[in-house]
Amino acid sequence: MSDVKKVVLAYSGGLDTSVIVKWLQETYQCEVVTFTADIGQGEEVEPARAKAQALGVKEIYIEDLREEFVRDYVYPMFRANTIYEGEYLLGTSIARPLIAKRLIEIANETGADAISHGATGKGNDQVRFELGGYALKPGVKVIAPWREWDLTSREKLMAYCEEHSIPVDFANKKKKSPYSMDANLLHISYEGGILEDPWAEAEEDMWRWSVSPEAAPETPTYVELTFEKGDIVAIDGEALKPHEVLEKLNKLGGDNGIGRLDIVENRYVGMKSRGCYETPGGTIMLRAHRAIESLTLDREEAHLKDQLMPKYAEVIYNGYWWSPERRMLQAAIDETQGNVSGVVRMKLYKGNATVVGRKSEQSLFDESIATFEDDAGAYNQKDAEGFIKLNALRLRIAAGKGRKQS
Amino acid sequence: MSDVKKVVLAYSGGLDTSVIVKWLQETYQCEVVTFTADIGQGEEVEPARAKAQALGVKEIYIEDLREEFVRDYVYPMFRANTIYEGEYLLGTSIARPLIAKRLIEIANETGADAISHGATGKGNDQVRFELGGYALKPGVKVIAPWREWDLTSREKLMAYCEEHSIPVDFANKKKKSPYSMDANLLHISYEGGILEDPWAEAEEDMWRWSVSPEAAPETPTYVELTFEKGDIVAIDGEALKPHEVLEKLNKLGGDNGIGRLDIVENRYVGMKSRGCYETPGGTIMLRAHRAIESLTLDREEAHLKDQLMPKYAEVIYNGYWWSPERRMLQAAIDETQGNVSGVVRMKLYKGNATVVGRKSEQSLFDESIATFEDDAGAYNQKDAEGFIKLNALRLRIAAGKGRKQS
Amino acid sequence: MSDVKKVVLAYSGGLDTSVIVKWLQETYQCEVVTFTADIGQGEEVEPARAKAQALGVKEIYIEDLREEFVRDYVYPMFRANTIYEGEYLLGTSIARPLIAKRLIEIANETGADAISHGATGKGNDQVRFELGGYALKPGVKVIAPWREWDLTSREKLMAYCEEHSIPVDFANKKKKSPYSMDANLLHISYEGGILEDPWAEAEEDMWRWSVSPEAAPETPTYVELTFEKGDIVAIDGEALKPHEVLEKLNKLGGDNGIGRLDIVENRYVGMKSRGCYETPGGTIMLRAHRAIESLTLDREEAHLKDQLMPKYAEVIYNGYWWSPERRMLQAAIDETQGNVSGVVRMKLYKGNATVVGRKSEQSLFDESIATFEDDAGAYNQKDAEGFIKLNALRLRIAAGKGRKQS
Amino acid sequence: MSDVKKVVLAYSGGLDTSVIVKWLQETYQCEVVTFTADIGQGEEVEPARAKAQALGVKEIYIEDLREEFVRDYVYPMFRANTIYEGEYLLGTSIARPLIAKRLIEIANETGADAISHGATGKGNDQVRFELGGYALKPGVKVIAPWREWDLTSREKLMAYCEEHSIPVDFANKKKKSPYSMDANLLHISYEGGILEDPWAEAEEDMWRWSVSPEAAPETPTYVELTFEKGDIVAIDGEALKPHEVLEKLNKLGGDNGIGRLDIVENRYVGMKSRGCYETPGGTIMLRAHRAIESLTLDREEAHLKDQLMPKYAEVIYNGYWWSPERRMLQAAIDETQGNVSGVVRMKLYKGNATVVGRKSEQSLFDESIATFEDDAGAYNQKDAEGFIKLNALRLRIAAGKGRKQS
Repeated sequence: MSDVKKVVLAYSGGLDTSVIVKWLQETYQCEVVTFTADIGQGEEVEPARAKAQALGVKEIYIEDLREEFVRDYVYPMFRANTIYEGEYLLGTSIARPLIAKRLIEIANETGADAISHGATGKGNDQVRFELGGYALKPGVKVIAPWREWDLTSREKLMAYCEEHSIPVDFANKKKKSPYSMDANLLHISYEGGILEDPWAEAEEDMWRWSVSPEAAPETPTYVELTFEKGDIVAIDGEALKPHEVLEKLNKLGGDNGIGRLDIVENRYVGMKSRGCYETPGGTIMLRAHRAIESLTLDREEAHLKDQLMPKYAEVIYNGYWWSPERRMLQAAIDETQGNVSGVVRMKLYKGNATVVGRKSEQSLFDESIATFEDDAGAYNQKDAEGFIKLNALRLRIAAGKGRKQS
Repeated sequence: MSDVKKVVLAYSGGLDTSVIVKWLQETYQCEVVTFTADIGQGEEVEPARAKAQALGVKEIYIEDLREEFVRDYVYPMFRANTIYEGEYLLGTSIARPLIAKRLIEIANETGADAISHGATGKGNDQVRFELGGYALKPGVKVIAPWREWDLTSREKLMAYCEEHSIPVDFANKKKKSPYSMDANLLHISYEGGILEDPWAEAEEDMWRWSVSPEAAPETPTYVELTFEKGDIVAIDGEALKPHEVLEKLNKLGGDNGIGRLDIVENRYVGMKSRGCYETPGGTIMLRAHRAIESLTLDREEAHLKDQLMPKYAEVIYNGYWWSPERRMLQAAIDETQGNVSGVVRMKLYKGNATVVGRKSEQSLFDESIATFEDDAGAYNQKDAEGFIKLNALRLRIAAGKGRKQS
Repeated sequence: MSDVKKVVLAYSGGLDTSVIVKWLQETYQCEVVTFTADIGQGEEVEPARAKAQALGVKEIYIEDLREEFVRDYVYPMFRANTIYEGEYLLGTSIARPLIAKRLIEIANETGADAISHGATGKGNDQVRFELGGYALKPGVKVIAPWREWDLTSREKLMAYCEEHSIPVDFANKKKKSPYSMDANLLHISYEGGILEDPWAEAEEDMWRWSVSPEAAPETPTYVELTFEKGDIVAIDGEALKPHEVLEKLNKLGGDNGIGRLDIVENRYVGMKSRGCYETPGGTIMLRAHRAIESLTLDREEAHLKDQLMPKYAEVIYNGYWWSPERRMLQAAIDETQGNVSGVVRMKLYKGNATVVGRKSEQSLFDESIATFEDDAGAYNQKDAEGFIKLNALRLRIAAGKGRKQS
Repeated sequence: MSDVKKVVLAYSGGLDTSVIVKWLQETYQCEVVTFTADIGQGEEVEPARAKAQALGVKEIYIEDLREEFVRDYVYPMFRANTIYEGEYLLGTSIARPLIAKRLIEIANETGADAISHGATGKGNDQVRFELGGYALKPGVKVIAPWREWDLTSREKLMAYCEEHSIPVDFANKKKKSPYSMDANLLHISYEGGILEDPWAEAEEDMWRWSVSPEAAPETPTYVELTFEKGDIVAIDGEALKPHEVLEKLNKLGGDNGIGRLDIVENRYVGMKSRGCYETPGGTIMLRAHRAIESLTLDREEAHLKDQLMPKYAEVIYNGYWWSPERRMLQAAIDETQGNVSGVVRMKLYKGNATVVGRKSEQSLFDESIATFEDDAGAYNQKDAEGFIKLNALRLRIAAGKGRKQS
């Protein structure tokens, strides 16, 4: 046991992190500072105060980080059209850097020398919290109770609660939800339970944020999204703050059965896991962002973005938000977004988020050139011959020298 | 006018390429060989014989290339999860290399010294045909009538037909379809007409292969796709040839409103264009392939594939199928597919193609490690500490030396 | 012949571009503005004035662009450790964007509607000049005489001179240098002549800027280069402007037989060509920059730079300096250079530019951790076990499932 | 202490690994199998037999792996022109996979359940040995004494020897070499000692394989290297086996002062370290391979290779030779080498390995097209206009719409 004076804990107010408070106090004989943030998980954060007080915590931080979360993390990530392994919108990954940053800032404010979190030793979140912590405060101590303690079963946890007079509500006492869940403004995730069999279909009553496509309205909803420099700033003409945008899109998407995802993904710690996700707003946002880019980005910068994206996604997924490589990639991405402004019109209908129109004053679409009709000389078709001939030259030389071509 | 003796023309049997036959004969005073292929465009190819004969063509090739098309072009491309610019499944691009190859092979068989096609000077298809032609027969001459002649309006074309007694059916005489269309087993595309305004929503009656999500059945269809080494070999347990797979998936997808796409894309010749596509089977196939890979591919090869994919898509889109760089990328991709076998279960419903289960004897998903339950020591959570500590080391050193971290 | 009123010509003052002046006046019946720049080619530029006047040119621009050239083009490029095809330091490529920019600015100042240059139709330089021109002034006309005229042999050129009273000095009249050469502060290049046989060794008397390693001094020269944010700002403690740095390094390198290169390269127009280059200062600079980066860059940003570099080199080689993709890459590169400061000590000796020491206040080299001696707990060797175990996990799972590993 | 029955140790015969033999026997109470390989380190391996016997080892493997090492590891790596961080030729990294493979094969033959090695907990080699071991035998136990024991100083080691009657020769007893060295056919490396100060110049008497450029002969040596499918198969016309090639090139290079390198590199475990390397043969080979590729590779495959190379280098450096991603990259690389055949002529002189000529029957260099002289119509310069115009189109459209271009 290393010597710890004071530790800042990412505290949800739930049972597990309440146990951690007690366990930290007892095991490390140290003071515990709790930090509870509203990042849009859909639960009240204020009740955490009383719970922390009951556990003897003196320094309690409760904060509404929704705007900062979307503005400084979600939005920059969406500028890159970021998807991990072709499917996952990184809803969990992108919330961790902000938590890590606040843990460290609070540690600095309160004179704490350690941080702690409730993530297990098998997952990605421990990595994300701790890489962030180390990057922002290199000498910080990290306590990851799930890697240390022996409370490895539900029964042991319950016994610990009883022993230490930690109040457990009835539902918790009887049976935990079959799923491990995590939520923030961008998504809610489900793991464990029957999902551990990748062949098993998720049960309808697992999903919380969206209706099924079957249950969604019979008539489509149309929505217009206004972009400025790569970010959505208004919906149907109404100016909104970043987190308000996402809240509204979550509602619109969820109501129309949009954003459910069921995948097997590769964790940074080396194993595959199966997860289900609901990302209603994010799903709409990604499609819309691509659409406005299709009109306003140059081809080569767009292709280069697409080539860099998988790396950028991996960097975020693996927990390296607070790293030079993320900043380097971000610089490249942000450089391209200055003209990514305009309006995208989308149709939402029973699980489908479909782009049906896009317009922009920064549009590079040139109707006078692209037209099948007479273009009045805007484009000289004869240029294509030389273009093709020189592009073919290396292939012709090779073929002329007898190289196999198939 | 260069000296041409005999030219092989990619002949659809339609009005435009019929005009080209006559124009080639007249302009180059050369013999014309026609080549008409069934690649699943959904129209009879046999009628092209009588039309070509009526135009005085003596060497007429009519071929069913559907199996070869899917087996040797579509399937290899789907092994890479290929998408151009985040959206487009390359339905047109992937059909051109095979046409180019057959044009050249027929030129070699018939002693022709030139090839010709009906693609315009503004599009990608001219590039794809000609790069393929030059790569496979470096000394071939290429005649691209649309870049040469002055039949630049509907009226002039009609006048030319009248003058040269080329029969024009009533519909064609009165009015052309408002869209430029192209179809094969993978997709049908629409360009031009009102689509030239990227803000205008495509009209419902434009779409030909799929019903709208609204019109699709109220109950979902479930389907099981069996993969072997990256390719689908059976549907619901029934073994099928590659083109039969795609035909069946097109039917299933189209009936369920799946595979419509509406995008603005960047052409290789330098302009943006707006296109609508229906790719019902391909849309299902792509999702399913990713799902079976999620279970059977190693993480790092999967990520590397994702990083190479945009380049591979660009290579195909730009017309470089018959190139060393395509073969090089294909070698990397194919190297990864040896274990991509198993079954994916999908739910098709009103525009949604959703993966709901996947299983494989080559699965790398290890339930005993991934489980939230007791893993009997399969994974030592304490290993995570060292893993994180060393991954954090460079960040800690930098922070310790005062480097900014945000 | 398109209608041209006034054309700005990149004018060297040499025979070829003098002929072009006359040919432009005669062929296009237009006014010619000459633009002659000192970019360190090592020849006086002022004599170009009298020559242009003699040809009847009224608007004559003669400029010293050496500082701007190195500061805004060479230096940014070297921040990326840019090498084309593993060998070439892009000495010619990097000079073209500045020339193109000035041609367009002068066209705007003088009301010219066209630009012209003396590059041939086979090379890269035409592409670089013209892409730059079109990017900076999209409506500009470009006249490339070598692609248009019929003065395709030495004899015809001489006849044209005689006919139009263009003075030809004796050396030129008798025999041209066997090599096509191009020089600026970064390098001098040689093509053509016996170099057209890639097996033939370049003759010693071809090289102009450097002595041979054999002829270089028997004792080494040591030099200390001071970097600030990725750029050299002082040599042996003496603060110098960018072009002074390069001039001095060219001298030091040339005197010590450093920077000769003999390669076969792939041109953008599709052919291979053989070129010899002398880049004395650049060769030293590249090595030194890598050395200072080795101390001051984070590993992952360094590796990402290395992965982006070939693309960046290609972009510059192909002539796309004035493009969104170059700016995007530059943004990423420049983001990394804020801490690339310090001193590199080099030994120059008979063709070798060897790094023998490097130091920096921004160094990330941590002797207390790296040491083979006792590190007083700075690094916990036991962390390595978990690090390796989790990095191996995916490989172990695969092997455990019987996957081939070799 | 986990339960180990028998362990295969990578045994050099030196003091450190002799101590390990004894320590393993004592600590794990297990049988030790020693494995000593000649991979060209330049020391006799046979003496290891007697030493192992003296330590009570019963199963002793002593093998000459030089040919296999160069043929199956060094050569495939050089096909990619592999360099780590712009400088390092991976001489240590590439020897580890073969050692790991033999350790595992011997474990399988002898029924051992564990492997062991003498690498420290700070370096890359532990990672390379262990990743290889786990990949090839997922259930193997790994014992890394340097991470476990407390013999952390020279004094403790000596005391242990005395205590256990391990013979220490006089030189060893008195003073260890100031450098940590490692050698194989590809290189010899130096770390530690005064090198731990990156500003300190390496002392001349440190280098063992090469003379200094100053001490090298005054006259150059010319050598012709014959390649077949990317590998050197003959020197000056004499057919040689892979390891004979490297031995000869090491001699030639070393005699001419070629292949010294002094760098700061980024280790996989997260720290920077300073190393000096002598790679005489490899330095020549790399240059020559690039030269023969310059003549025989298509441009686009060459560029793609250059883009993949840094990743491939990282994979090998980090120890992932036995991984799917390495095999995937190798497949791409090897696909390109079928025509990389021909002869490269090099001049070796006082530290310089200079390419002076290259020829190949598979050459794609086309003198008739590249020539500055009359090309008899092989290349139509007018094609360049269309080529440039269409490549510029996207830039012109953007500029026409007012996009900033600088």
